[in-house]
Amino acid sequence: MAVISYLTTICFENGALKTLRHHLDATGVTRPLVVTDQGIVKVGFLDGLSDVMGTLPPQRLYADTPPNPTEAAIDGAVRQYREADCDGVVAFGGGSPIDLAKGVALKATHPGELVRYAAVGGGESITSSVAPIIAIPTTSGTGSEVGRATVIVMNDGRKRAVVSPHLVPRVAICDPLLTTGLPPSMTAGSGMDAVAHCVETLLSPRINPPADAIALDGLARAATWLRKACKDGNDIEARWHMMMASLQGGLAFQKGLGAVHALSHALGTLRDPILHHGTLNAVLLPPVLAFNAAAGKDKYARIRVALGLEPDDDLPSWFTRFTRAIGLPTTLSAMGVTRAVLPRMAAMAIDDFSARTNPVPLTQTDAMSLLESVFDSEMIGEMT
Amino acid sequence: MAVISYLTTICFENGALKTLRHHLDATGVTRPLVVTDQGIVKVGFLDGLSDVMGTLPPQRLYADTPPNPTEAAIDGAVRQYREADCDGVVAFGGGSPIDLAKGVALKATHPGELVRYAAVGGGESITSSVAPIIAIPTTSGTGSEVGRATVIVMNDGRKRAVVSPHLVPRVAICDPLLTTGLPPSMTAGSGMDAVAHCVETLLSPRINPPADAIALDGLARAATWLRKACKDGNDIEARWHMMMASLQGGLAFQKGLGAVHALSHALGTLRDPILHHGTLNAVLLPPVLAFNAAAGKDKYARIRVALGLEPDDDLPSWFTRFTRAIGLPTTLSAMGVTRAVLPRMAAMAIDDFSARTNPVPLTQTDAMSLLESVFDSEMIGEMT
Repeated sequence: MAVISYLTTICFENGALKTLRHHLDATGVTRPLVVTDQGIVKVGFLDGLSDVMGTLPPQRLYADTPPNPTEAAIDGAVRQYREADCDGVVAFGGGSPIDLAKGVALKATHPGELVRYAAVGGGESITSSVAPIIAIPTTSGTGSEVGRATVIVMNDGRKRAVVSPHLVPRVAICDPLLTTGLPPSMTAGSGMDAVAHCVETLLSPRINPPADAIALDGLARAATWLRKACKDGNDIEARWHMMMASLQGGLAFQKGLGAVHALSHALGTLRDPILHHGTLNAVLLPPVLAFNAAAGKDKYARIRVALGLEPDDDLPSWFTRFTRAIGLPTTLSAMGVTRAVLPRMAAMAIDDFSARTNPVPLTQTDAMSLLESVFDSEMIGEMT
Repeated sequence: MAVISYLTTICFENGALKTLRHHLDATGVTRPLVVTDQGIVKVGFLDGLSDVMGTLPPQRLYADTPPNPTEAAIDGAVRQYREADCDGVVAFGGGSPIDLAKGVALKATHPGELVRYAAVGGGESITSSVAPIIAIPTTSGTGSEVGRATVIVMNDGRKRAVVSPHLVPRVAICDPLLTTGLPPSMTAGSGMDAVAHCVETLLSPRINPPADAIALDGLARAATWLRKACKDGNDIEARWHMMMASLQGGLAFQKGLGAVHALSHALGTLRDPILHHGTLNAVLLPPVLAFNAAAGKDKYARIRVALGLEPDDDLPSWFTRFTRAIGLPTTLSAMGVTRAVLPRMAAMAIDDFSARTNPVPLTQTDAMSLLESVFDSEMIGEMT
């Protein structure tokens, strides 16, 4: 068992799910609300959960997390939390249930609407009375199991981050065996979320060499193992490494993200089509890498080394080819985005929390150009 | 300001000392006991401390930390802590005051002798009632400002580790400007402590890729900057990087150390001569690297890459030359150790907490051979 302790206690091993009982006891949680989604229910994962924590009483199971979690969904879960007199939350699933669980842990213990606590600054009103969270990721992934942020579509329709160390799960149970059934498209999309985290945190101007080291190692790991995980979902070694790469991206989060996430958070507010966050990141990474190039020479050199590239290899092209190779789209139109929404998305993106740590300031014009550059043609070879 | 958060909140910047007032307030400490040593007093550093925290009342200043902290010294400081009704500890100095401060924070709040809490297993009796600690390192260094261990010469004369997450300082204020006055020998010795931490944690068999990434980055950093810091103590850039490398070694500690530390802890119990921990590590690193070689092929390859070496370069030789280049001894006899003590040191080393995570099991015969191999001749070119 790899026990890794950076704010969160991380128990990482094939089969780690069986440690849940121990962690509930150690955290003092006796009546957890289990937060998950219908996808998890349909693949039968709740049986595995009941095996380790006993029968799940229906009143302590919230399984309706939407693909992009909303404040309304959180409020529904909080009602259940209170009615069942819960004392903690077990988040079981991908980034959406984990983020929703953090929202529940917050709203169940703090007054008012979520926007009150939204970044930047709102997190300072969050106290240690946040309910304890145990996070069990089933994708690789958002890294939310070790992150201090939750990203929620607020009551006003905007997707905003709520950030506080008190939102960091007490325990992350990282069990690669839970990901073997993830279909190739989900493996690819969530894998590119991890890749985008590693790249964007490295490029963030904040100074944090330990986070940089973790992020580069995670990037190299994902570059080596993501294709294999997409090709054969039962390749346990590949699943182990992709869960580790995802965790590493999450551990580096404290540096802040960048324009890729600013743009994908905006696009993530759309209800039609509903867009997968990781896949959006994959599409947006090449143009943002081109956009940020002048500010990131030293770091781009480190990225090339991590990826085993030559000193003058073009990074946006490499990422475009990598994304294609794992079966993901490389344009926004291929994902069903219409041109009509782009201006609104650009306006939203520049106000996003993540835009603040992009190495190059992002204007609305820049955001619009970035979106247009991969609207219906992929980004190859435009980095100077 | 680099704010790094891995268990400890780390504030890292030239001039970071000025944030102490803020952190005392944020941690809720109003009557701290300042723990330091006569070395710090003599260089006039207490003036800088008073500038930021107000006049230090003598009853809340403990300045008698011995070079290898003892339980008796801790007990003296705890008496002061109680008489002055303190509510937290500010550790200001090298590893010894920081380790002593942890001992004070523990014994002021927990009953009984330290041996009760010693690793392995004793740490489980340590609770969150440990007094809050703010650590301000003035060497680069032990990494103790972010570590969960304190290493103390117990009442029975044995140097033992006490390990608990509750001993991790709440805040580490890492101000490289505090190290500019460190003389070359101390710069070299504490720098090699950081190097040994990075190497030994990497070689530990525990699985923790984030820690490995941090350790390798710290090692590469120290290899680049230690000579410069020794050559010109006022090279602020070199001091910044050495403090970061030291921090990185400390962040990787959770993987456990190895035979180098097992042996140096044993030698650190001697009262005549009093031996510097980091310098001992420097002398012991080459033979231990030779001893561990068969178990560490992949990791040795990563170390060579981090150091910019060729795939078949001999690591023990490189470290011996590096140690010589920074003006440190490369044999135990040069440090004043006599042959007569070696058997007792070997017996003590195999029981040391750190021996458990050496990649190759360490017998008493092995420990004796390792000590003899660098007793009066340096280790060059004996790795197979």
